[in-house]
Amino acid sequence: MTTPASAPRIAAPAQVFAKGHGAGNDFLVLPDPHGRLALTAEDVVRLCDRHAGIGADGVLRAVRCATEPEAAGQASQAEWFMDYRNADGSPGQMCGNGIRVLARYLVETGACRPGTTAIATRAGIRRVHVTPSPAGPVTVHMGHPRLPGPVHLSVSAGSRTWPAVHVDVGNPHAVVLVDCLTDPGDLIAPPVVTPAKAFPDGITVEFVVRPGPDTLALRVHERGVGETRACGTGACAAVAALNPAVGTYTVSMQGGRLRVAVLPDGAMELTGPACIVATGTVEPSLWPGPA
Amino acid sequence: MTTPASAPRIAAPAQVFAKGHGAGNDFLVLPDPHGRLALTAEDVVRLCDRHAGIGADGVLRAVRCATEPEAAGQASQAEWFMDYRNADGSPGQMCGNGIRVLARYLVETGACRPGTTAIATRAGIRRVHVTPSPAGPVTVHMGHPRLPGPVHLSVSAGSRTWPAVHVDVGNPHAVVLVDCLTDPGDLIAPPVVTPAKAFPDGITVEFVVRPGPDTLALRVHERGVGETRACGTGACAAVAALNPAVGTYTVSMQGGRLRVAVLPDGAMELTGPACIVATGTVEPSLWPGPA
Repeated sequence: MTTPASAPRIAAPAQVFAKGHGAGNDFLVLPDPHGRLALTAEDVVRLCDRHAGIGADGVLRAVRCATEPEAAGQASQAEWFMDYRNADGSPGQMCGNGIRVLARYLVETGACRPGTTAIATRAGIRRVHVTPSPAGPVTVHMGHPRLPGPVHLSVSAGSRTWPAVHVDVGNPHAVVLVDCLTDPGDLIAPPVVTPAKAFPDGITVEFVVRPGPDTLALRVHERGVGETRACGTGACAAVAALNPAVGTYTVSMQGGRLRVAVLPDGAMELTGPACIVATGTVEPSLWPGPA
Repeated sequence: MTTPASAPRIAAPAQVFAKGHGAGNDFLVLPDPHGRLALTAEDVVRLCDRHAGIGADGVLRAVRCATEPEAAGQASQAEWFMDYRNADGSPGQMCGNGIRVLARYLVETGACRPGTTAIATRAGIRRVHVTPSPAGPVTVHMGHPRLPGPVHLSVSAGSRTWPAVHVDVGNPHAVVLVDCLTDPGDLIAPPVVTPAKAFPDGITVEFVVRPGPDTLALRVHERGVGETRACGTGACAAVAALNPAVGTYTVSMQGGRLRVAVLPDGAMELTGPACIVATGTVEPSLWPGPA
């Protein structure tokens, strides 16, 4: 475009975003190094609207721990805090693909070096390893999954009901073993998890098949989002529910494949692609107000 | 974000895009003033992917008529040509919301002044009026709709079949009057138009109810896209199919409302919101190659 005679009105430099994804699970990154954005649920909904906004499964506000009250206790261990929000505006504790995309963004913008970085989340510190290539894999240490049991969970979707395993990977999951990934139907209506009152903030549901000892395929219905093409914590929860041996598992989802390594101490590492597809500036009408 | 020590790798300045929408019908604008982009169907599909790309109902490549072989004959009447592509990569003749978003973009970037501008399309020259406010309405003169008749069209969706009216508004439409907008079902599978061989490139289908003499509500299944939140040519086609009197009609769609004015000479004007929500740069891996 030629330089306009009058100053263009779009692209105010501070309203910066990036869009990225890990295996098709996509996010808007909002860099907020000095903690100046008051990001409301309405802002997130507007930004994540795939038609009238930019569109994503969630928002990752990147804020320095030192300037974020919610992360003040983590400032000695990590420079950056991931303020993760689901597409409906609700805050999330952890997001396995989100933190991988955020780490990729921090490296691509020069805010972090390739290699291992600690990032603070609402579920605690997570260590992320970013390879130098912009299209290379990113690995996150996911900590130890917990199987709180023995509450009897069940999940209904389509016209069927299954027993489910409750797994906590920083956020709550209900894992269901199904015969076929089409059994839960179109998942336009959220699956119903019983007892509902055990999860007042909702729960993410994985429908899993296991075609081989080290391979899983799954569909995910994320709380606050809907069905997504991939889910990092969901991949880990699905592996954890199967009482896995130490080793590496390949988890296929609609948007691509992730690898879950079960370490000798029972902790998990999640590896997969994470890339930035675009960066830019958002119109003022869509942008959050000041903090 | 602080200035990085090493040069960031994202945001190469030439790979510019904007995202905008008219009543929720959304587009990526690719400015290509000198006709240097060889935009393939695969590029469009990649860019319009709502998870692994940026996401939109279609792409609007903005190229000067003088540098675009397809528009060379229109260069004396218009500076810019709208190279419109559906989300599946197929070229489209005209797009009522797309041309309004493109005109808004040209004004916001200073490439055109507010007021009336002629823009070239595959369906010929269209005159567009852009109000100065970035959130204000944009009107496009849509020319004369044609009702080619008397071929008997029918449309099947869900488990039902209706007679349809064939309307040409620069692109082909089949307009169906239904009792209720839920009658066609979820429209995940495309509606079947018979005789199919009359439209080898596909046809856009409108399902219409008419709650009042001057008000319509409709759902649209766009060829090459799927169900969309709004469709400008569809709004005009729906009004044209009703044998309308001179006057102004309000057309409600999922994403918002458009106004269709039927002029004394039978031509139509389409008015509604058209705004740019973000601008930025696309990663090289998603960007088209040189022409």
